[in-house]
Amino acid sequence: MGRWQPDARGRLALAAVDLYSERGYDATAVAQIAERAGLTERTFFRHYPGKREVLFAGSELQNRLVTNVRDAQLCTGPMDAVARALEATGSFFEELGPMARARQELIDANPELHERELTKLAALAAALADALRARGVGDPAADLTAEAGVAVFKVAFNRWVHTDNATTLTQTLRETFAALRHITADHAPSPR
Amino acid sequence: MGRWQPDARGRLALAAVDLYSERGYDATAVAQIAERAGLTERTFFRHYPGKREVLFAGSELQNRLVTNVRDAQLCTGPMDAVARALEATGSFFEELGPMARARQELIDANPELHERELTKLAALAAALADALRARGVGDPAADLTAEAGVAVFKVAFNRWVHTDNATTLTQTLRETFAALRHITADHAPSPR
Repeated sequence: MGRWQPDARGRLALAAVDLYSERGYDATAVAQIAERAGLTERTFFRHYPGKREVLFAGSELQNRLVTNVRDAQLCTGPMDAVARALEATGSFFEELGPMARARQELIDANPELHERELTKLAALAAALADALRARGVGDPAADLTAEAGVAVFKVAFNRWVHTDNATTLTQTLRETFAALRHITADHAPSPR
Repeated sequence: MGRWQPDARGRLALAAVDLYSERGYDATAVAQIAERAGLTERTFFRHYPGKREVLFAGSELQNRLVTNVRDAQLCTGPMDAVARALEATGSFFEELGPMARARQELIDANPELHERELTKLAALAAALADALRARGVGDPAADLTAEAGVAVFKVAFNRWVHTDNATTLTQTLRETFAALRHITADHAPSPR
């Protein structure tokens, strides 16, 4: 697994995670993050709107996922398209290495960051549903596949990040999609 | 379907939805909500910590769901337990009648309320996962079943509230759980 070679954007994210972990999120100022990264405050604001956003991948992850769903082969079913798209982003997080865990601990410990993460995931589900509809998937299948896919992602990511990356995120995603299949297959329709 | 007979708590919620719809969420003060409900501001704050919380059912829905999962028969599988628990809360929302839709339109239009809703749903998933673990369900099945159940709930609720309640929420939940089963059954494991 190749280590992340950070550019300015990446160096700022790394510095932010370090400082938030050392001093706390609230006690850290943008100027300190820029200084730690060896950059100016102006450069920080060219890359991120504020100290909260520095922890989130912005639109990059979402764009990649939407492209993957859009480009999936025509014969691919909706859940397969979403599963493959999510699995293909595993390396995106794996490249972050130990920073991924430090980042998640910060998010879990801070309600404001946690809210932001939930909003990001909801936006991701909405974008995936739109990409499925663009493939001709109807409703509620499009929304449902997207929401279920994001549910799998949340659970898999949480497992991966808290088990010291013993398996790859991609593999954890595969296992969690398989687990969803087993769990729902066991589910019987409710009696009327 | 019996119409909702509001107590003080319910009258405040109804007044809030009315005023937020008429004047906007930001332009409405707690004092105005209390006045519209024929109650005092002090009574408002006995029931709700603020103007945001008046739109959310508080811990009532979550407690009901957790109790339902806890009390499900021992032989019931995890997804069945969650599906039945969620279906059993359908009447909770159905009793709100047209207010349910007005409330949802407010939430969808206001980022702050939308964030709050996502936080509530995440807490609901965590509580359901705990209830499943208390039944002896392992991980990741507990988290996954809870997250997938809440994903179904989100999609079903959204459908129900935007289709003028043509079918009951309970029935919409059943159909959406069945749709998840079909979607995941079609999903093939990814090639290694």
